[in-house]
Amino acid sequence: MKEVRVALVGYGFIGRCHTVAYRQVPFYYPDIEARPVMTVLCDANEAQLEAAKEQPSWQEYETDYERVLARDDIDLIDLCVPNNVHVPMAIQAAEAGKHVISEKPLALSLAEARQALAAVRKAGVIHMICHNYRRVPAIALAKQMIEEGTLGTIYHWRATYLQDWLLDPTAPLVWRCKKEIAGSGAMGDLMAHSIDLALWLVGDIERVVCDMETFVKQRPLLSASGTDVGLGTQAAEEQMGDVTVDDGAIALARFANGTMGTFEATRFAPGRRNFNVFEINGSKGSVRFNLERMNELEYYNVDDPGGRQGFEAILVTEPCHPHMGLADGMFRFWPPGHIIGYEHSFINTMAAMVNGIATGENPRPSFEDAVKVQAVLEACEQAAQSKAWVEVEKG
Amino acid sequence: MKEVRVALVGYGFIGRCHTVAYRQVPFYYPDIEARPVMTVLCDANEAQLEAAKEQPSWQEYETDYERVLARDDIDLIDLCVPNNVHVPMAIQAAEAGKHVISEKPLALSLAEARQALAAVRKAGVIHMICHNYRRVPAIALAKQMIEEGTLGTIYHWRATYLQDWLLDPTAPLVWRCKKEIAGSGAMGDLMAHSIDLALWLVGDIERVVCDMETFVKQRPLLSASGTDVGLGTQAAEEQMGDVTVDDGAIALARFANGTMGTFEATRFAPGRRNFNVFEINGSKGSVRFNLERMNELEYYNVDDPGGRQGFEAILVTEPCHPHMGLADGMFRFWPPGHIIGYEHSFINTMAAMVNGIATGENPRPSFEDAVKVQAVLEACEQAAQSKAWVEVEKG
Amino acid sequence: MKEVRVALVGYGFIGRCHTVAYRQVPFYYPDIEARPVMTVLCDANEAQLEAAKEQPSWQEYETDYERVLARDDIDLIDLCVPNNVHVPMAIQAAEAGKHVISEKPLALSLAEARQALAAVRKAGVIHMICHNYRRVPAIALAKQMIEEGTLGTIYHWRATYLQDWLLDPTAPLVWRCKKEIAGSGAMGDLMAHSIDLALWLVGDIERVVCDMETFVKQRPLLSASGTDVGLGTQAAEEQMGDVTVDDGAIALARFANGTMGTFEATRFAPGRRNFNVFEINGSKGSVRFNLERMNELEYYNVDDPGGRQGFEAILVTEPCHPHMGLADGMFRFWPPGHIIGYEHSFINTMAAMVNGIATGENPRPSFEDAVKVQAVLEACEQAAQSKAWVEVEKG
Amino acid sequence: MKEVRVALVGYGFIGRCHTVAYRQVPFYYPDIEARPVMTVLCDANEAQLEAAKEQPSWQEYETDYERVLARDDIDLIDLCVPNNVHVPMAIQAAEAGKHVISEKPLALSLAEARQALAAVRKAGVIHMICHNYRRVPAIALAKQMIEEGTLGTIYHWRATYLQDWLLDPTAPLVWRCKKEIAGSGAMGDLMAHSIDLALWLVGDIERVVCDMETFVKQRPLLSASGTDVGLGTQAAEEQMGDVTVDDGAIALARFANGTMGTFEATRFAPGRRNFNVFEINGSKGSVRFNLERMNELEYYNVDDPGGRQGFEAILVTEPCHPHMGLADGMFRFWPPGHIIGYEHSFINTMAAMVNGIATGENPRPSFEDAVKVQAVLEACEQAAQSKAWVEVEKG
Repeated sequence: MKEVRVALVGYGFIGRCHTVAYRQVPFYYPDIEARPVMTVLCDANEAQLEAAKEQPSWQEYETDYERVLARDDIDLIDLCVPNNVHVPMAIQAAEAGKHVISEKPLALSLAEARQALAAVRKAGVIHMICHNYRRVPAIALAKQMIEEGTLGTIYHWRATYLQDWLLDPTAPLVWRCKKEIAGSGAMGDLMAHSIDLALWLVGDIERVVCDMETFVKQRPLLSASGTDVGLGTQAAEEQMGDVTVDDGAIALARFANGTMGTFEATRFAPGRRNFNVFEINGSKGSVRFNLERMNELEYYNVDDPGGRQGFEAILVTEPCHPHMGLADGMFRFWPPGHIIGYEHSFINTMAAMVNGIATGENPRPSFEDAVKVQAVLEACEQAAQSKAWVEVEKG
Repeated sequence: MKEVRVALVGYGFIGRCHTVAYRQVPFYYPDIEARPVMTVLCDANEAQLEAAKEQPSWQEYETDYERVLARDDIDLIDLCVPNNVHVPMAIQAAEAGKHVISEKPLALSLAEARQALAAVRKAGVIHMICHNYRRVPAIALAKQMIEEGTLGTIYHWRATYLQDWLLDPTAPLVWRCKKEIAGSGAMGDLMAHSIDLALWLVGDIERVVCDMETFVKQRPLLSASGTDVGLGTQAAEEQMGDVTVDDGAIALARFANGTMGTFEATRFAPGRRNFNVFEINGSKGSVRFNLERMNELEYYNVDDPGGRQGFEAILVTEPCHPHMGLADGMFRFWPPGHIIGYEHSFINTMAAMVNGIATGENPRPSFEDAVKVQAVLEACEQAAQSKAWVEVEKG
Repeated sequence: MKEVRVALVGYGFIGRCHTVAYRQVPFYYPDIEARPVMTVLCDANEAQLEAAKEQPSWQEYETDYERVLARDDIDLIDLCVPNNVHVPMAIQAAEAGKHVISEKPLALSLAEARQALAAVRKAGVIHMICHNYRRVPAIALAKQMIEEGTLGTIYHWRATYLQDWLLDPTAPLVWRCKKEIAGSGAMGDLMAHSIDLALWLVGDIERVVCDMETFVKQRPLLSASGTDVGLGTQAAEEQMGDVTVDDGAIALARFANGTMGTFEATRFAPGRRNFNVFEINGSKGSVRFNLERMNELEYYNVDDPGGRQGFEAILVTEPCHPHMGLADGMFRFWPPGHIIGYEHSFINTMAAMVNGIATGENPRPSFEDAVKVQAVLEACEQAAQSKAWVEVEKG
Repeated sequence: MKEVRVALVGYGFIGRCHTVAYRQVPFYYPDIEARPVMTVLCDANEAQLEAAKEQPSWQEYETDYERVLARDDIDLIDLCVPNNVHVPMAIQAAEAGKHVISEKPLALSLAEARQALAAVRKAGVIHMICHNYRRVPAIALAKQMIEEGTLGTIYHWRATYLQDWLLDPTAPLVWRCKKEIAGSGAMGDLMAHSIDLALWLVGDIERVVCDMETFVKQRPLLSASGTDVGLGTQAAEEQMGDVTVDDGAIALARFANGTMGTFEATRFAPGRRNFNVFEINGSKGSVRFNLERMNELEYYNVDDPGGRQGFEAILVTEPCHPHMGLADGMFRFWPPGHIIGYEHSFINTMAAMVNGIATGENPRPSFEDAVKVQAVLEACEQAAQSKAWVEVEKG
């Protein structure tokens, strides 16, 4: 069987999540065209690497990205670094002839995203943006239903991605609060996911209007020993720094097909830990998804007989559901009713990427999709600044 | 005990609902300052009156509004007529020295709403707008919590009012689809409720941006024998007429206190029969309400101990809850866990109106509140037309 | 139109509930064969009567039951008195030629229940037991589905009726805690409802085994001024008295058709205010009902297409649903999605009783049904005492 | 770091699940005392082994159990074989000086279970029964709350474990339908889990009464090529065979501490794919768990302030929750709100077993616990046969 030799760059929470995924791909996807080989883990922070070594997954460890790129035995670069270095590192990877998958959002600006796309196209490498939620089975089922016409003409898209981890004003100023590193706040971190799903499920967005706010304008600086986002152990300094990104963002959108859309993303919704929720209303039915109950899809069918109509909670764990199915005659994951978790959306994503490299067929969402998301994000930010509707640039 | 002699005008679905309320007020509110006497029911449509006579509630029946106004034995005019005649009939009532309660929305325009307010002020009568949801106990509990500071500083308001009764494109062109009678569609019918709740619970709205759409642009004309909204018996003609109101409307809002708000109202959300839902996120907690489960309020308390936090489903049926309580040493309604229904929000509203007339203290929501709602509605419509943010005029 | 002149006996919480029902029947049921006339309210407790007078509903008031029976202008006796006097008073009513409806449970023993049945049969009067939940639309929909074969062969019945109002050991010894008055505790008060529904929905029960417990064996005596169940105002004395009924009861049952059944009733389930829940599993589908969300029925259809299966939350508020429908061309209650409350189950019940008297066709559940319920209750109590399975006597 | 060299026996669905767990333990538990080494996978069926080789996890493959036991380089035997061979193989393993973990139920009878316990005790090896649900974080939180007294005195235990995979009468006669292999049906497969949780969370059970039924008495034989349970691909023969186990079972129980318990297990509940649900009511609060939403625990706190009480949906994904927490300064699994799946309960279980071997402290649930579960299962079966309450033998 073919092998895809992976170098993963950046070992924070999300790098660890990708690590789990690569470990599990060969097990859950014996039917795939190639297997990932976990060749190198790269992180400039040696302490992070030491932690990684305690959780044995990778064959080798490296602190220098250039040295990774110089190696002949690497096929795929996986970028789990902060947002501001996605594009430069992706371009480097492409120029080194490596396939590349990047965490989202791809870029700090649309122009930058386009540079990355140009680079991977020029290099002819396979490219993917890690919008892992496309491969949550319940969301993939929604996609399948839409493509089959089950929902009919779509009238409404309604998305919220609500979290609450920044609610405490004494939480420290982590990198996700700084514009120069993160690009934006709830917008790029959370709404980017909703936008990708909207583009995939409903179609292109033509114009947007948006409002953004930073509720807590200053936060204590993060002490040197502080680590990742949302941990109780984060140590804060006495000195304060400016929050330069949005804590919350809301937007209206019009899709090319006439669908009316609303979006909201925030880190200030108490009790909503990871409330990535969308609802779609069409002429033949509705669906609703909630990431906190990610194995379920709520579905309303206009054609159910009168008096027997209502939202149905589909437990999306059957062999006939997308991404579930059988592998070697057994359930790919588990029998119906035995749920999967957050990491499985990454397992499915990495399987698609590895398979794409093996077959030469570029999987989705690609950098083209990332550029489209970036175009909407940029339109939103412009709309928030100009206080006006803004046309979304074509990808 | 004092009596308030009522004349109700307009006996469609909502007039019938007010009728139930007046009947029940003396029973559920033995502690009130006055009792409603159901003196006259007025409807220009004799067939409607005949139906009313089958359901004995009113002492007398009348087809002519002028004759009602001319009577000395009427204290209160209750307007359950279509939106376009609320204001002229309210002004007439005020000029005749009658107290007045009107269904919502009060007017077709802000200017018109102000005329009604001027009239009742000049006449010195008690006035009320029938935003009955303010007196759903679960919503009143949310209000109480906000006033007590339980939610802290409010960051987000998020409201949807979704229905689906116009989804079928062959449903006939009822009056709610015609701008000259209804003023607007989902906007004035549904979003008006959300706006009133937002103003009450969160505070004044400063500016809005909005988008509106009519998904089904023509509908068959309603036959002469057709009656009220949403009935299977509505007979449609072959000839088509234009739908001149919005089927759906979405809006962003900024409140004076900085809260970010979203609104959505539609009649095109399959499975959402009466999905009047709002969520409020504040620095100390969140609440969520859903009219389809109107006896419940979901509440998240930031101060719950770590690891024991989550949204709590409060069944708002305890004696200590607003509008519940005791009457003559017994539960006003029923013991905890025995739910109340839609009509009880009207019973509570009519009790407040009758009590206000007896005490001379004008209850809320008054025509002042109605004007404020109208100002937001008008700003939304302007924003939708001008495709720009619009400042909300002061009441 | 015919009239049915009612005398209601016993004005506690449940008498008040029946009062609302009679008041509302003519309004919601203009299509009925007769109208209730609220002639006399009878209660030995003058204080209770005084409260009733404050809530004007009845034409006359009376403290003496004999005098009520002696009147010619009474057609129907409605018994809202404690359990121990249901039967003697029902027999008296029958002997006086009055139709009779009684609150549940009908009797303290099966023998006694049979006496009541014999009396009404001999007198040829119409009789009914107030198992109001049969006329909750969502439950009636379950019945309709079962009768239409929608659920196929039934395998499982699973019922809990959980409350928590006696959880506090300092709550006083109200009459519902005394065997001589109440007959039993959670068993007769709560499980009786579940049993009636089981018999109606699934069929006859052949044998049972049961366990009962009194968790709090003594409670402070109720002071003279204390009133009804579950009120915060109940004043307790220092002196203690014995609780002589069960706080909780659990049972297994086998139905004549082979269905396996479980029952549980308790007043010691914190947070369960009125958790009357049942689930039925059949070869073609399942339904689940929860009284705290009494406008909903959950339904699973085995025949839904693969991958689109799940429990569906039917909002049972459509005109096509049982007890909803139209009256005089309008919704009997409210438009879809506008929920009804606890009292509407009584309105539907009283309408059936009044209609039965007018037509001469005895409505269900009749005293025959009450005897069947009593037979199961008695078998349960014997099973709990004998610690053995007990065959249920035929009605 | 120490190593624990594992031989896993039996590679059906559950063997595959244990395989995932061993693979993941070192990653999620870097803080553990030893690491599992996946030395040998043993299955008598070569086809199964071939499938396993496609999903590279194990160093070696073996078809002969004796040969595995004879090896020096095996520390732990993990038994994922059918129920009837758990005990003989566990005894062999113990006699060979191997530590042993077995799938549940441990035995076909109490006597047999005691033999296994005697063997591991005699051998002085570490032993564990794989009741993985004890290590679902939400269930472990319930345990923690009970131990801290959060629920007070427990009054009620209520458990159902409902599935529907045998509903179709044409589903073939898999081994789980045969008494000689499975011991029992829903009883040993599903109710065994509920019983283990009951014993752990509430305490010892003193007596039970039970009813069992086989709804479909004959099924088509499984064709030679048919594989595991619940797969659509299972091929059935024309010839029929007898189902010799229960399809459904219901039981009442009394615990030593007075708690009243109900249990139900079935494979005939349409729509309940894996509905392992329990509720506990105590004097200070209640909890409810549902495996289909395994990251949530519902909690009602009697001490919440009046009017602010209700069941709270705790998302059990916080670092402070059991089994979550931090590993090397990062979340063991994922940030709050990012859910885990079915397999994580096994990861937690295997980590405990491996750690127990390293430290010499026998983890729970041990074979002692398994014997206690078996005693309850046996009492239930006797109670069902004798139609009488049966005292549970002491472990």
